[in-house]
Amino acid sequence: MTGFIIGLDFGTLSLRGVLINAATGKAEANQAADYRHGVMTSHLPSGRRLPPQYALQDAADYSEAAESVLRHLGQGRHILGIGLDFTASSPLPARADGTPLSALHPDEPHAYVKLWKHAAAQPLADAINARGGDFLESCGGRLSGEWMLPKAAQIQQEAPAIWDQAARFIESGDWMTWQLTGIERRSLDFAAYKAQYRPGISYPDDVVPGLADRLGMPATVGTAVGPLNDDWRRRTGILGAAIVAVAVIDSHAVLPAVGAVRPGAWVGALGTSAAYLLLEDKPLPLPPGLEACAEGAVLPELWCYEAGQAGFGDMLGWFVQTFPRDADLARNFALYNAEAAGLAPGENHLVALDWWSGNRVPYADSHLSGLLAGFTMGTTGAGIYRALLESLCYGAHFVKDCLTQGGLAVSEILLTSGLAHRNPLLVQIMADVLGQDITVPALENPTAVGAAIHGAVAGGVVADFTEGAMRFGASAGTLYHCDDRQHSAYQRIYRSYRQLAEDKTVRDTLHDLNHHQQNAFLGSARDMA
Amino acid sequence: MTGFIIGLDFGTLSLRGVLINAATGKAEANQAADYRHGVMTSHLPSGRRLPPQYALQDAADYSEAAESVLRHLGQGRHILGIGLDFTASSPLPARADGTPLSALHPDEPHAYVKLWKHAAAQPLADAINARGGDFLESCGGRLSGEWMLPKAAQIQQEAPAIWDQAARFIESGDWMTWQLTGIERRSLDFAAYKAQYRPGISYPDDVVPGLADRLGMPATVGTAVGPLNDDWRRRTGILGAAIVAVAVIDSHAVLPAVGAVRPGAWVGALGTSAAYLLLEDKPLPLPPGLEACAEGAVLPELWCYEAGQAGFGDMLGWFVQTFPRDADLARNFALYNAEAAGLAPGENHLVALDWWSGNRVPYADSHLSGLLAGFTMGTTGAGIYRALLESLCYGAHFVKDCLTQGGLAVSEILLTSGLAHRNPLLVQIMADVLGQDITVPALENPTAVGAAIHGAVAGGVVADFTEGAMRFGASAGTLYHCDDRQHSAYQRIYRSYRQLAEDKTVRDTLHDLNHHQQNAFLGSARDMA
Repeated sequence: MTGFIIGLDFGTLSLRGVLINAATGKAEANQAADYRHGVMTSHLPSGRRLPPQYALQDAADYSEAAESVLRHLGQGRHILGIGLDFTASSPLPARADGTPLSALHPDEPHAYVKLWKHAAAQPLADAINARGGDFLESCGGRLSGEWMLPKAAQIQQEAPAIWDQAARFIESGDWMTWQLTGIERRSLDFAAYKAQYRPGISYPDDVVPGLADRLGMPATVGTAVGPLNDDWRRRTGILGAAIVAVAVIDSHAVLPAVGAVRPGAWVGALGTSAAYLLLEDKPLPLPPGLEACAEGAVLPELWCYEAGQAGFGDMLGWFVQTFPRDADLARNFALYNAEAAGLAPGENHLVALDWWSGNRVPYADSHLSGLLAGFTMGTTGAGIYRALLESLCYGAHFVKDCLTQGGLAVSEILLTSGLAHRNPLLVQIMADVLGQDITVPALENPTAVGAAIHGAVAGGVVADFTEGAMRFGASAGTLYHCDDRQHSAYQRIYRSYRQLAEDKTVRDTLHDLNHHQQNAFLGSARDMA
Repeated sequence: MTGFIIGLDFGTLSLRGVLINAATGKAEANQAADYRHGVMTSHLPSGRRLPPQYALQDAADYSEAAESVLRHLGQGRHILGIGLDFTASSPLPARADGTPLSALHPDEPHAYVKLWKHAAAQPLADAINARGGDFLESCGGRLSGEWMLPKAAQIQQEAPAIWDQAARFIESGDWMTWQLTGIERRSLDFAAYKAQYRPGISYPDDVVPGLADRLGMPATVGTAVGPLNDDWRRRTGILGAAIVAVAVIDSHAVLPAVGAVRPGAWVGALGTSAAYLLLEDKPLPLPPGLEACAEGAVLPELWCYEAGQAGFGDMLGWFVQTFPRDADLARNFALYNAEAAGLAPGENHLVALDWWSGNRVPYADSHLSGLLAGFTMGTTGAGIYRALLESLCYGAHFVKDCLTQGGLAVSEILLTSGLAHRNPLLVQIMADVLGQDITVPALENPTAVGAAIHGAVAGGVVADFTEGAMRFGASAGTLYHCDDRQHSAYQRIYRSYRQLAEDKTVRDTLHDLNHHQQNAFLGSARDMA
């Protein structure tokens, strides 16, 4: 089929787009655009100061970036489909015609997009969790303050006038497809994972009064919202059918790009934190500590189980920055990695709990913290670094155990994101710890490519995601074989890790440390008073 | 009284002597001499290689050093008393006339002094401990491989011909007073703490056959062995009565020098490891984890309870050397101390178990190792360093708790050794953690001064150790006041420390790490085979 598909990956600070030749499957161009106002955490463009823990964005920046990227990639070209992924939950209040309320009230914080990492709604999530409800079943009984319901509750409580004017409360990804097509068609992905929508039941209607009226029935991913509208064709010079697909969560978009379109595929995105997605063809009760699951929201007809590690690459970054051997960060990592690579499992006489940023699975407890056990006078910096690498893999093993104990099968493991490419030692340890071969697919901008595959499915370029993955996804990758002897050594150390992790006294002590620290701050506040 | 007293401190690598004016109480000269052959760990002077874990010395080196130091300090002077302290247990086999067997068999390792840290007799100690016996009561049921009985057993088993020729088996300290006076008069201090001698019962006679015949009845410290003999007067030019006192263990000699001559005085020597001595005027069952106790062995008519921390200053040294901020070690300590001093208790969100070199009290378990709990992304190097400082103080608190729970009272705390002088932050934290004021006596070479006080008591210069301490001991010191508010904050964190320390799962996990490490070494040995 002659023509192109376009994938748009709306990240936290910028939009990255990819143009793929539909006939050859090759990416022919990449283009990025930063958001004009970035993430607003301290003040609005008007100069108005923001309260602590705010993280806002201006929806107009998304349009501006989209116009620039689409024009660069698509001008004068025959575009068959456009897919886009977005950070979530990043909702905004809008008028019935789609106008963001920030365009009308530029000095009002609650009129802007609340970015996924806007943390000021956490107390509202805590209140919702305390009340409880059936709708919490699909997310392990616990809403995050980063999700849509608490963000809506915050506007309703703190800015009722804005809430009254908000005919629509909408994820930025859905708002963007609405802008591009003139049609409001929401994604089941956002609805199920971020707004507790349940097929056959709808959204929870008694949590935030009036919220359900401001939402909209969602559609399965891979379906079309509609063709790019005339206004956007004029602004970008795009030709052809240009069918825009229903939006998808950025972390989910990567699956078809790395070929994860089958039950049993387990994809880990190893970044600052680690996000794991497991595909299944049948629903199972959500295993303890898992974050969410939904059907057809990530890929059609498949259930997708989400889990994660609160900290991952950030822990390694913490170590090399706290104990640098070289002023250059990359060189620092290289030095520690080279020395750590020479150590056999157990040789460092250490085991760590990878909880520097708290624990998600299975304890869902952000008040836990990290631990290192086994120091001797012979302990080295590289030995500690290796213990941190290993602990990240034990944490992943714990996640996998929760999945398999819940009846879910992990038949193939795919790792992606920067760390999977940059740190082969980490991936090899992961394979040896997990006892399973690991593939790191070779692909640039996999998230944007995944978004493009959504466009290809919606535009009828391919019959389904399986064909989309085959035609446009990664065709090569690096295979890391599990070494059986290393695996049995690691299994013994993993038992030590589990023993410490499951020891309630240890976790109680970690909680106590939070109180001790609070007391220290209260003490110094008292001294200053 | 006109004249001088001399103290001789026989350490691991050298002898340090002090000359004190008996009339003024002032130290008028110091003199040191290294041992010619130092510590022999790899080979004998003959070139013969030594097995692993050997640490030998040549008794002739002690005589040579003593002659040099005594001549320098005493030549032409009227000497009233000479006291000496010695490392222990550092025994040697000798003929009935005192000739060390090493003088007759210079190529035979077992003919030399087995220095206190000679570790190759540990298996023999393990065997003795496994058989058990009443004599183990005074040392908590467990002989150390560093003590006299296992060292005798090693010679008897591995070099029976040497054992047969050894009419005497004697601590180097007792051998030295024998040399100086021509009279063999053993110290109760060595006998009670290092050879399980029990007053009224004698030495255990069925542990090493023939050992009891090679020993001798011991005398209380502060008694005289006899005057310096003619040979030594000729060699040193010393004049006067020159009464030589019964020898004393080096770590015990410090007590009168720092004024610890009363029940309730608790003296901590903070060095690489920490050694604590508590004086009592009544016997009590040895609290769990304590190392030994005996009456009249350290000071007349007082019971002395020994305890310690296996690692202390070495742990801080490990940290600043593993994570240096400056090439200069002293500057490194200064940088970390300065930053750590700015942190309030609990602010670092960490608690550590100070077991880098194992634990002595209460677990007597050298296979334990260190632990750090509470890492967050905000943890700093100085925060970790402060956690190590604090954990050393919690370890001391644990020792003190074992004493007081055993019915022993700690009414004053005195800290000595290098670290107590060099690290005021550590001593202040110690006072705040222990909840008690601490004195760091100001005195150079306190161990040698303590030995001199032994000489003064034996020579009749003073009536007893109380007068000796007053006349010749430290007359000033630095007082560290306990801050009550800091103390209550530390009490809360100390509970967390105890919670972790007493958690059997934690200790089991630390033991598991030893097995994991052994497996790693076995694995690499297999790879090389």
